[in-house]
Amino acid sequence: MDMDYAEGVLSGVPRAIARVISWVENEDSRARPCMEKIHGHTGKAYLVGITGSPGSGKSTLTDKLTRHLRAKGFTVGIIAVDPTSPFTGGAILGDRVRMTELAQDPGVFIRSMATRGFLGGLTRCTGEVIKVLDAAGKDVIIIETVGVGQDEVEIMRIADTTCLVLVPGLGDAIQSMKSGVMEIADVFVINKCDRPAADQLFMEVTNRVEMDAQLRKPSWLPRVIRTIAVDNVGVDALVDAIEAHRDHLKQTGSLKEKRRTRTKQEILQMIHNELFELIRRRLSTDGRMDAMVEAILKGEQNPYAIMDELTSRWIRLTERGSGESTTGSGTLPFV
Amino acid sequence: MDMDYAEGVLSGVPRAIARVISWVENEDSRARPCMEKIHGHTGKAYLVGITGSPGSGKSTLTDKLTRHLRAKGFTVGIIAVDPTSPFTGGAILGDRVRMTELAQDPGVFIRSMATRGFLGGLTRCTGEVIKVLDAAGKDVIIIETVGVGQDEVEIMRIADTTCLVLVPGLGDAIQSMKSGVMEIADVFVINKCDRPAADQLFMEVTNRVEMDAQLRKPSWLPRVIRTIAVDNVGVDALVDAIEAHRDHLKQTGSLKEKRRTRTKQEILQMIHNELFELIRRRLSTDGRMDAMVEAILKGEQNPYAIMDELTSRWIRLTERGSGESTTGSGTLPFV
Repeated sequence: MDMDYAEGVLSGVPRAIARVISWVENEDSRARPCMEKIHGHTGKAYLVGITGSPGSGKSTLTDKLTRHLRAKGFTVGIIAVDPTSPFTGGAILGDRVRMTELAQDPGVFIRSMATRGFLGGLTRCTGEVIKVLDAAGKDVIIIETVGVGQDEVEIMRIADTTCLVLVPGLGDAIQSMKSGVMEIADVFVINKCDRPAADQLFMEVTNRVEMDAQLRKPSWLPRVIRTIAVDNVGVDALVDAIEAHRDHLKQTGSLKEKRRTRTKQEILQMIHNELFELIRRRLSTDGRMDAMVEAILKGEQNPYAIMDELTSRWIRLTERGSGESTTGSGTLPFV
Repeated sequence: MDMDYAEGVLSGVPRAIARVISWVENEDSRARPCMEKIHGHTGKAYLVGITGSPGSGKSTLTDKLTRHLRAKGFTVGIIAVDPTSPFTGGAILGDRVRMTELAQDPGVFIRSMATRGFLGGLTRCTGEVIKVLDAAGKDVIIIETVGVGQDEVEIMRIADTTCLVLVPGLGDAIQSMKSGVMEIADVFVINKCDRPAADQLFMEVTNRVEMDAQLRKPSWLPRVIRTIAVDNVGVDALVDAIEAHRDHLKQTGSLKEKRRTRTKQEILQMIHNELFELIRRRLSTDGRMDAMVEAILKGEQNPYAIMDELTSRWIRLTERGSGESTTGSGTLPFV
């Protein structure tokens, strides 16, 4: 039965895609065999990140961008990691209706992520969901996040093209630029540019981009686009900018490099999660954890000293152990 | 010099507190000796979590709550983990001015967390910042988060009293209740209750709380409070509810249990972070990571199989090693 779902994903069957994503989110044991089976079919989708403050209109922009991409014949997957997104139920009814309309298109798959869990679960989950949509044959996967908070920045970092949406008058332009999102944006979108102060924001961002370019000499000069997403104004220019950035990445070999980085992050995250589960299980089953907690609460131990001892013992053991012969592949590292 | 900063924190000197928190956020090596020194002086502060959607007015509520607590003679630390909070610069100017006014009070220390980093850094950081404010003698520490996203829920879980702020007409009540925040809320605050539909929301939440109580028979029946934070209405009732919950926790021994759980989480996180950092450094310095990535990209390996092999080797080595005699304390676990 599980294999059928993997086949379903590979054939792009929405029900199978939705089911496997749910398994991933719920850490259901049925996810693993599916993910193993579809893994070889991933790596083809182009990832676009759309980020911006709540109220910047990035959901509307995502909606319009998707329609433009569909008109060009591309299939689209949308992953909304945003508590204020209409996809996740945070916005007014009108938005939600529009999104539902988009969801009727068989060439579009929309998923909102409201996953919780312990440490790094959201980022891990998003990576797996991307893989599912990728294996399902979606040409472009749009990831929409609020772009604040470490998980969101991490997610944006894995996108091929990252678009930062700014709005005149929200006073968040300088804020966003300080927050680290500036450095990862490939395209700046000045949305709601019929508002007063739009020209000023456009100039500010353009100047900032140019100053930054003089300092850092990046191979890609971020584009600054003006849009009124709600009226579908400027969205074609946004599509052009994304395509230009994609071509740039391909020509310079950066796309391959990005895929390499993404795989690396993925492995690190898997190690991170596995390690944590192992530690937690081992410490809680044999009562050693309780002994440590009591010692700390009584003031007999401090957690920092415990950490030092643990770490040095671990280094000693694993370094000694890393010399052992293995049954597996020689390239497999011992961690 | 570092010792002076630890002393400064213990004496409640704002500049020292701010400096040590910055070290913690930046993972500066000077943080560690300070944290070791102040550790013995923590565990006295009472932690209040305030969570709710953007626009629910939780920052205003935090502001008013702080003033009430100050009037009662308590010192207050505020940690804002919220991209839309005026503390972190996300809101309109008026809010920010009011917060700045509060910041003039020497009995109040405000810190916004905009930390990014790899996996779980925010939660770790918040725990350490709580410790700094705790050691600095703050009686009550208020942690404000948007309450959506796993980091935020994790942070709320460590609070002694968790308040969930809901607003009539935002349509997010049911959303919040589904999202897992419902189960950890000790006090429900219906804010902006001069709005239409406030009575309906109040009834909905009250019914939900009562139904839940019949099912789960919790020892604490969550209170439902009506406020208009901006007009300072109902904030005294909120203070009463928090104090009642605190007394309940003390009487039932739950407060001790919560501290125990918090210490446990803290140790787990420290072990996890330390080991993960070690692994990451080791893998990237000797080129094994690159070899793994290439094997995966070429399709010669899949990450799931690599993880299985890593995990089983790791278990084998560390279990064998756990039998060895140690120079340290006998209660010290090997992880």
